[in-house]
Amino acid sequence: MANMYDISIPPLVLTLNNLSNILKKGETYADTKKIEHTVLLNGRLFPDMFALTRQIQIATDMSKGAGARLANIEVPKYEDDETSFVELQARIANTITFLEGIKPSQLENAETRHIELMVRKTKLEFTGLDYLSRWVKPNVYFHVTTAYNILRHNGVELGKLDFLGPR
Amino acid sequence: MANMYDISIPPLVLTLNNLSNILKKGETYADTKKIEHTVLLNGRLFPDMFALTRQIQIATDMSKGAGARLANIEVPKYEDDETSFVELQARIANTITFLEGIKPSQLENAETRHIELMVRKTKLEFTGLDYLSRWVKPNVYFHVTTAYNILRHNGVELGKLDFLGPR
Repeated sequence: MANMYDISIPPLVLTLNNLSNILKKGETYADTKKIEHTVLLNGRLFPDMFALTRQIQIATDMSKGAGARLANIEVPKYEDDETSFVELQARIANTITFLEGIKPSQLENAETRHIELMVRKTKLEFTGLDYLSRWVKPNVYFHVTTAYNILRHNGVELGKLDFLGPR
Repeated sequence: MANMYDISIPPLVLTLNNLSNILKKGETYADTKKIEHTVLLNGRLFPDMFALTRQIQIATDMSKGAGARLANIEVPKYEDDETSFVELQARIANTITFLEGIKPSQLENAETRHIELMVRKTKLEFTGLDYLSRWVKPNVYFHVTTAYNILRHNGVELGKLDFLGPR
């Protein structure tokens, strides 16, 4: 058996720390190559896909939503107005601070908690465990991987260890 | 508390089924647009990143390795010689069949099982739970997302529901 806290909060914090490091490498690359930051921040893999900034906003949204809903506390609201690496780093850092403030005891029995969320106009309902396994994890990894892929596609030198984190 | 089987085998099977559907859409797109299959199969987001075929090989490797190691049975060997959509679909289907053959009882106490694996020349050691949370899940989602992104970057019409699966 696995503890709900162990399979949610620490892996999310690790992933967000990795995202922060990936983004930092993107910023350093832009500065070294004298590329305007907005070029990378608006980078995307296809015209109707979300740009880098939005990928980071969604990855952090999914993470704060997961911590809050599994702990049964209010989901923090963000303004979604970041336009720089500094502001995106602050968003990631705030999300990590929020998650690190959640105690294992708040996630006791979270696996059976009834979770509802609105996605556009559709109400989704999950058990806590399905919410984590079938919604949060795939979504967070999807958007962090896509942020990585956008930077990689633009020439930033990243390797899978940047995505997985230090061992 | 969450059962190790519930947080490993069904999410992996779901993700592989989604990968199969994504790949099917890629094949249909190639046929509709009269694009040689190898163009998509060799597609990549940057010259030194892995191509689509390799992304699928790694996603399935990570999945079969996870099922086998957590159940403490032998990891199936694949030849890694797929050169077509049909062969890649067979690889995904074989992996799903392998995972579906694993019983929940085989994963009892898998969270504390000592897991060792060689990655190139480095030995990695994990508890079963860390192996699943810090290695398998991020790696599988990374390679499935990158397969999705390669196809999306090449114009295949995919949406996040293709990645997340039916609800």
